[in-house]
Amino acid sequence: MAHADKPFDLTRYLRTSNAAVNHALKRFLPSAATAPSTLHKAMRYSLFAGGKRMRPALLLAAAEACGGSVVNALPAACAVECIHTYSLIHDDLPSMDNDDLRRGKPTNHKVYGEGIAILAGDALLTQAFEILTHSKATQRYSHRELVLELSRASGSLQLIAGQVADLEGEGKKLSLSKLLYIHKRKTSALLCSASRLGGMSANCTPTQLRALTDFGYHIGLAFQVIDDILDVTQTSEKLGKTAGKDIAAQKATYPSIVGIEKSRQIAAQLTANAFAALKPFKGKATALEALAQLLLHRDN
Amino acid sequence: MAHADKPFDLTRYLRTSNAAVNHALKRFLPSAATAPSTLHKAMRYSLFAGGKRMRPALLLAAAEACGGSVVNALPAACAVECIHTYSLIHDDLPSMDNDDLRRGKPTNHKVYGEGIAILAGDALLTQAFEILTHSKATQRYSHRELVLELSRASGSLQLIAGQVADLEGEGKKLSLSKLLYIHKRKTSALLCSASRLGGMSANCTPTQLRALTDFGYHIGLAFQVIDDILDVTQTSEKLGKTAGKDIAAQKATYPSIVGIEKSRQIAAQLTANAFAALKPFKGKATALEALAQLLLHRDN
Repeated sequence: MAHADKPFDLTRYLRTSNAAVNHALKRFLPSAATAPSTLHKAMRYSLFAGGKRMRPALLLAAAEACGGSVVNALPAACAVECIHTYSLIHDDLPSMDNDDLRRGKPTNHKVYGEGIAILAGDALLTQAFEILTHSKATQRYSHRELVLELSRASGSLQLIAGQVADLEGEGKKLSLSKLLYIHKRKTSALLCSASRLGGMSANCTPTQLRALTDFGYHIGLAFQVIDDILDVTQTSEKLGKTAGKDIAAQKATYPSIVGIEKSRQIAAQLTANAFAALKPFKGKATALEALAQLLLHRDN
Repeated sequence: MAHADKPFDLTRYLRTSNAAVNHALKRFLPSAATAPSTLHKAMRYSLFAGGKRMRPALLLAAAEACGGSVVNALPAACAVECIHTYSLIHDDLPSMDNDDLRRGKPTNHKVYGEGIAILAGDALLTQAFEILTHSKATQRYSHRELVLELSRASGSLQLIAGQVADLEGEGKKLSLSKLLYIHKRKTSALLCSASRLGGMSANCTPTQLRALTDFGYHIGLAFQVIDDILDVTQTSEKLGKTAGKDIAAQKATYPSIVGIEKSRQIAAQLTANAFAALKPFKGKATALEALAQLLLHRDN
């Protein structure tokens, strides 16, 4: 818990929340030895490949801002991370982004082959909904609402819509509004849902849910604009994935459309909007604020 | 509803239940014009490609056997069909079974390309859980239980485990017990779950749920043994998919391990076990019985 009189220790916060999430994920997922062992190894390979666990951290911090507990928020945090990981595995496939590196390691299909990589993604997506059933329903939010929230954010109108638009936009000159369409769905939707699910696990009020939606939406967009900037300005080693890929694939990005400086301004403005959204929490959303700062200033 | 004094009209029953399922699926799924239009077209292409809707029919018949209504069972029936369709789309991909024909039409990736086919499968899988939230929870079975049921049956220990074992078994000489392992998961798990979800939507008793589990398990296995037989004995035209594929791919099947005649005996025995499981319904499971008969005697 944060205290107003000393600065918030985000490094420590993330260490604790990541440990809790990793522990829970290991418990929720079948062991690597469970048959079919290749599949469970492949699922765990990508799930424990050193991801930053930003979505679970956001979810836990949102729960905390609403007076909720880590224990009640953990199943949803793990579910969101399973969705995120599945989407990366499928996104890296040869028929999609065709990427060889992810988080500094060979991508799932490079290690396990395309067939198993597709099935490992399918299994993580399915597992997300199983894990979500371990959540405790609250007075305001039943299991039904939790499933509806996660399925919509990950579905054909949000996360997958973003992937499709991204796939169809490759090599094309996109307008800023089309790029915004992609970013909203491909990145912002799940981050926004993580923020909302955190609140829901803590039985948040409608006002709090609106604030978390607004916060998650803006922080999600900022996250992707910064991703675009880092792809141009950082090395593959630093990113843990192939840098300059966007340019090579002639992908439309914020820097390619409005330039680096303007992109930085946009990211800063989005982050400012995210901070403004947190006002209803009256200083109690310290972890969320610290996360937003980290996302803006990260270099990988 | 069936009457003891005249034979059950299965053709009419299936026509009615398929119409209800198709109508509901069209309502639950985003229209083909909804952005991203390619994705929604691809989802609908496979979902409305003339599938027999055996799983939904089984689910509705199980609900009816427990005194439930079609309306309450429809969301689960549609959810199961979405799962089934996604698994076919992914199963047909070049890195899996590499099939060009399905239900007499080009497979999804042949029409829309691999990237969109993978995403259409992902979207149908996700949509299944969203559709399931439209179910009405009953006194004995909450939304939590419905989601747990569907996610487990479709997950890494059941449906996907079957796909993996199938993939890894290609070109290998399999024992009958290994083949049984595959069939249980790849086919029986979801049929069994359809039967159970039908009961659950009708607030079935624990005794009824056990009976439906037993019935679904045996009918699911019989279904797959018959599929294996038909692959050897029928033409591609009749099957609506490439016949003789199992032999070409050197796939282990019931006929290849125990021969056609013994396979027919096994299918008949499994169907008899399925009938026996229906005893607790004391003649009220007429539609389920008729479906079991149809599955045994079908020729495509």
